Amino acid sequence: MDSLVLYHSAFSPSALKVRFVLEERGLAWEGRLLDLMAKQNLQPEYLAINPRGLVPTLVVGGRAVIESAVICEFLEDYVDAEVGAPSLRPSDPFACARMRVWMKVADEDLHWATGPIPFATLGRLQWLGLSEAQREELLAATPDRARAAAQRSLFERGLEAPEIDVALATWARTLSELEAALTEHEWLAGAAISLADFSVAAHVYMLDYMQLNWAFEAHPRLRRWYERVKQRPAFARSLDPYLPAPVLDFIAAQAAAVGPGLSERLAAASLAAQPRG
Amino acid sequence: MDSLVLYHSAFSPSALKVRFVLEERGLAWEGRLLDLMAKQNLQPEYLAINPRGLVPTLVVGGRAVIESAVICEFLEDYVDAEVGAPSLRPSDPFACARMRVWMKVADEDLHWATGPIPFATLGRLQWLGLSEAQREELLAATPDRARAAAQRSLFERGLEAPEIDVALATWARTLSELEAALTEHEWLAGAAISLADFSVAAHVYMLDYMQLNWAFEAHPRLRRWYERVKQRPAFARSLDPYLPAPVLDFIAAQAAAVGPGLSERLAAASLAAQPRG
Repeated sequence: MDSLVLYHSAFSPSALKVRFVLEERGLAWEGRLLDLMAKQNLQPEYLAINPRGLVPTLVVGGRAVIESAVICEFLEDYVDAEVGAPSLRPSDPFACARMRVWMKVADEDLHWATGPIPFATLGRLQWLGLSEAQREELLAATPDRARAAAQRSLFERGLEAPEIDVALATWARTLSELEAALTEHEWLAGAAISLADFSVAAHVYMLDYMQLNWAFEAHPRLRRWYERVKQRPAFARSLDPYLPAPVLDFIAAQAAAVGPGLSERLAAASLAAQPRG
Repeated sequence: MDSLVLYHSAFSPSALKVRFVLEERGLAWEGRLLDLMAKQNLQPEYLAINPRGLVPTLVVGGRAVIESAVICEFLEDYVDAEVGAPSLRPSDPFACARMRVWMKVADEDLHWATGPIPFATLGRLQWLGLSEAQREELLAATPDRARAAAQRSLFERGLEAPEIDVALATWARTLSELEAALTEHEWLAGAAISLADFSVAAHVYMLDYMQLNWAFEAHPRLRRWYERVKQRPAFARSLDPYLPAPVLDFIAAQAAAVGPGLSERLAAASLAAQPRG
């Protein structure tokens, strides 16, 4: 088996998802940490590996595999069955289909609902320390114009930006879907932990560190599921090396200030939640 | 193997994708066609099978599998290897990863870029034949409020709606990514046809029937790839039974009126295209 090199970053839920899986499977891997605030992901050397300029990328014997959900399944296809801990992909086709639906929810819904809240609080504080010219330079360097427009709105309006309401509405709907799914099984795809649990937990972690406590209080099965996820040694191994104590303290102080208000808004969004479709 | 029952509709690219795959594999299946204009997908009987009210759903021995990309992979996991034509999922893990990236492009980008063009032209003509009360009833029955707002905009403004520019920009960027990928391989994931080709072709078909000819003229590898897809007998078998000649004639007449203008706008969007990220 060729060596596994992961290009990642400390805060990206997609990178966290892949670290969880690498650690849970007990696979040997090397990390290359990118500073997304300094736009290292848009440097030519990285774009040569991943033309989309996104993290994570897994490089295997010089060949790049992109997209976190695809990397997770790639590991199941590529790693010999006898290497590392048991597979995180169910052998039952119906359980495997449930796993993939949750992986899609993580990538298609939670991906957009996770970023705005930390950006409007923690990221915004960092941006306030920059000059206007530096901020404009960062916005101009963002290739996706819709994402740049959202960042401008979140910087200017903080938690009052309309993007926050959209994110909370997505979370409200998804939390009730998660609570319902956990009635049937202990883990999201069935009786055993799978890629689905790591994919969703990488996003639920934001609700935890931003202290949106209502999410866990109002969804007891979700709370117990998340406690089981956190008890996996892989959880600490995929987070601790990237979050030094001063960073965690800074986050906790900011989150304590905004968490209760966001929790109330999440509860209100839940009352107004529409089914998907 | 339990019987395969597909709940689908004539025009949904997601349903077309699954029909392509079922026909290409030569699997026996039964269809239940839903009328989306009459909102049969939001009736309680269907919501009991698929709570999202979306097509397609595959029911296998009474168990529902949802989400078109998940259904395609489910068939690979569920159907015995000796049944039907060869697998459409590559055994090489790197090719399989490429396949899954294209399946994500179809689901996450093209899914949103395909619908607005036919809705602003063909769907809008049908809506003009309804009373205002009937139209409001249809909009109110759409559970996703963002989708309902887009439908209102597309009904009111037709091809001048801003949703059309967003769709054309996505197509412009994706067409150049497709053209580049087809430099390396004859099919999207490698030397053999795979689920990736069916997933993308189900959306490219809209460019074809809406006569956005510039897409094919300016992307010769894409044009040859699409011609190869159309030559598969599965292509005709997954379309012809659902598109009677009068429907095709109606579409062709409308498309002839709007295709050239849309082609010009697609070419302009291509000049302004941003890389993704």
